[in-house]
Amino acid sequence: MNQTVVLVNLESRHTFWRFSTAHERSLRAAFPHVAFRVVNEERAPRHLAEADVYFGWRFEPSWLVNAPRLRWIASPAAGTDHLPVTEAHAAGVALTRSYGFHGRPMAEHAMGLVLGFSRGLFQSQRVQRNRAWWKDELAEEFFDLAGATMTIVGCGAVGEHLARAAHAFGMSVIGVRRTPPAATSGGITWTRPPQVRQAVAVADVVVDLLPATRATDRFFDHDLFPAFKPGSVFLNLGRAVTVDQQALLAALDAGHLRGAGLDVYEPKPLPARHPLRLHPRVVLTPKSSVFRRAYMDAAVAFFADNLHRYLTSRVLNGLAEAPTSPAPS
Amino acid sequence: MNQTVVLVNLESRHTFWRFSTAHERSLRAAFPHVAFRVVNEERAPRHLAEADVYFGWRFEPSWLVNAPRLRWIASPAAGTDHLPVTEAHAAGVALTRSYGFHGRPMAEHAMGLVLGFSRGLFQSQRVQRNRAWWKDELAEEFFDLAGATMTIVGCGAVGEHLARAAHAFGMSVIGVRRTPPAATSGGITWTRPPQVRQAVAVADVVVDLLPATRATDRFFDHDLFPAFKPGSVFLNLGRAVTVDQQALLAALDAGHLRGAGLDVYEPKPLPARHPLRLHPRVVLTPKSSVFRRAYMDAAVAFFADNLHRYLTSRVLNGLAEAPTSPAPS
Repeated sequence: MNQTVVLVNLESRHTFWRFSTAHERSLRAAFPHVAFRVVNEERAPRHLAEADVYFGWRFEPSWLVNAPRLRWIASPAAGTDHLPVTEAHAAGVALTRSYGFHGRPMAEHAMGLVLGFSRGLFQSQRVQRNRAWWKDELAEEFFDLAGATMTIVGCGAVGEHLARAAHAFGMSVIGVRRTPPAATSGGITWTRPPQVRQAVAVADVVVDLLPATRATDRFFDHDLFPAFKPGSVFLNLGRAVTVDQQALLAALDAGHLRGAGLDVYEPKPLPARHPLRLHPRVVLTPKSSVFRRAYMDAAVAFFADNLHRYLTSRVLNGLAEAPTSPAPS
Repeated sequence: MNQTVVLVNLESRHTFWRFSTAHERSLRAAFPHVAFRVVNEERAPRHLAEADVYFGWRFEPSWLVNAPRLRWIASPAAGTDHLPVTEAHAAGVALTRSYGFHGRPMAEHAMGLVLGFSRGLFQSQRVQRNRAWWKDELAEEFFDLAGATMTIVGCGAVGEHLARAAHAFGMSVIGVRRTPPAATSGGITWTRPPQVRQAVAVADVVVDLLPATRATDRFFDHDLFPAFKPGSVFLNLGRAVTVDQQALLAALDAGHLRGAGLDVYEPKPLPARHPLRLHPRVVLTPKSSVFRRAYMDAAVAFFADNLHRYLTSRVLNGLAEAPTSPAPS
C-alpha cells in the first residue's frame, strides 16, 4: 500500500483562518506515516496529481481532472455551497464540511446583535453625537430579553448553541427544523417549516440560520415578513439567498420590524448607497459571525479526527449531501 | 394603635417606572389593614404629615420637617446617593434601597456592550455607510469571549448576576469586593481593592459597578487605566464619580483601551461636542442599563415583602448605611 499523501492548502489573509507551522507539527506528530504537503494556492493544482486527501478552503471543479488518486476533499468551512459537491460526487470523491466549532462565535455574534437592538445600544451609538439627550426615546424602544421569545429558523447544531446563550438570558426558544428531534430537547420548542408563520408570529427575535438550498431560496419573503410580530428583530447569519431583501426593506420601512442585523447579503459587498447600508435600523457585519481566534485550532482538530476515520476506513463526519437532495436542516 | 398610613409617590414619565392602579390593587389586597395614599409629586409633601411610611423615587431633606409620624422611607431605586440618608438617619427614620431585580437588565446591558465591542458590531455600524468593505479591519479587532476574562470592580449582587451571563459565554470572572465571600463562590475568583491593579491587568473586559462613596471617588484614574491589559474594554454601569474622565480619554487616545461603554458620566447629559460623545471608541447610553419593562412589578414585590417586615417589627431589607461608613462594596 502506498503512503497516504495529504495536500494542505489553507492560506488566508487572516491569521485565525491560516494553517500554521504549529498545526503542521501537530498533524505530523499525530500521523507519522502520512505524508503532508503544505502548499500555497498557486501550487495546489499541480500537487493534486499525487494527493489522496485535500484539506483546503477552496477547490475548483477543474482541479478534479488531474487528481487521479484523490479520494477526499476536506473543507474547514461550515458550508459547502462554494465547493464542487456535484462534481466530486460524480467523480467518486468524498467531500466533507466541518462543524461543531462555529456555534460559539455565531452565538456571541447573534446575542450581540440581539442585545444591541434590545438595549438600544445601536440607537445610542447613532445619536450620541448629535442628540442632547435620548433617554425618553430609548425608554420607548428597549425590551427585556428575560421572558422574550427567539425563533431560530434552520435550527441545527449552531442554533442549539445559540439557544443555550438565549436561555442564559431567560429567553424561550422555538426551533424550526425540517426533521426536529422526537421530543423537546435542549429546552427548545420544536416545529417544522410548514408552521414557520406561527413560529415567527410569537417571536421577539427571529434568527435565520438556513443553509442555501432550493427549498430555502427567498424563504423570508413578502409573505413571511408581514407575519412577524410587530416590533420584532430579524437576524440573518445564514445565507443571503434565503432572504428577499426588497421584502425585508419593505417590512423595515413600514415600521413592522424594529431592526435587522445582517451578516450576509447580496451582492457582497453591497454597492455604495444601497438602502440596506443606509437604513437607520439595519446593522451590517462583513460575514464576520464565524470569526474566531481559535478557529483553525478547532478545524485542524476536526480534520485530525476525520483523518483517523479515513485511515481506518470508517465513515467520515460532515459528508456533504449531493445538491439534488432536500435541504439538510 | 393607629392604622399604618403608607404614602406612595411613584410618578415617572416612563410606564415601567410608574406605580399603576394594578400595583395599588395588589398592595391593598395584600394589606387590607393598611391605608395607602397614592399621590403625585406636588401633593406628596403635604400628605407626609400623616404618613408612617413613604414609598417613592424622590425625597427632599426639607420634607422631613413636617413628617412627625414618618418611620420609613422606601425607595424603588438601587442607589441612595440622591436621597437624604444622613438627614433621615439623624431624624431616626429608616431609609431603604431596593435590590435583587437590577441584575437582569444590567447584565443584559453589560453583555450587549461587551459583545458590541468584541464582535466589532459598533465598528460595523459606524462604517457600514461609507466603507466599501471592512472585513479585514474587523479581523484585526475582534476577540473571542470564550476563554476571555472579565473583572468586575464592585462585584455585589448585580455583579454576581453579570458573572453568570459572562460564564454562559465561557468567560472567566474576577470579582473585586471589599469583603469577598470566604471561598470561591459563583465560579468567581475573588479579590480585594488593594489587588485591583493585578485584577485589571489580566482582564479583557473591566466592568465598573462601584457605588459612589468617599473611597470610590475617581477610583479609575491616571494611575489605574495604564495598568489595564492593552486592548481591553472598559464599562461603567455604576456611578460617574468613580471615573476620572480625563484619564479614561487619555487611555483611549493612547490606543491602550479598545473601547469604553458608559451608562454614566458627568455632567449628565454631556455637553454638545464633549470628547466622550465624539470619540469613535466610546458608546454612551443614557443611564438606561436599569431599564426593565418589569421594573415596577419587581419593586412593588420587594416593597410588599419589606412592609410585612415593618408591620411585624422585623429588620428591613436594604437599609442604607449612614454615608460616614466605608464603601459598601
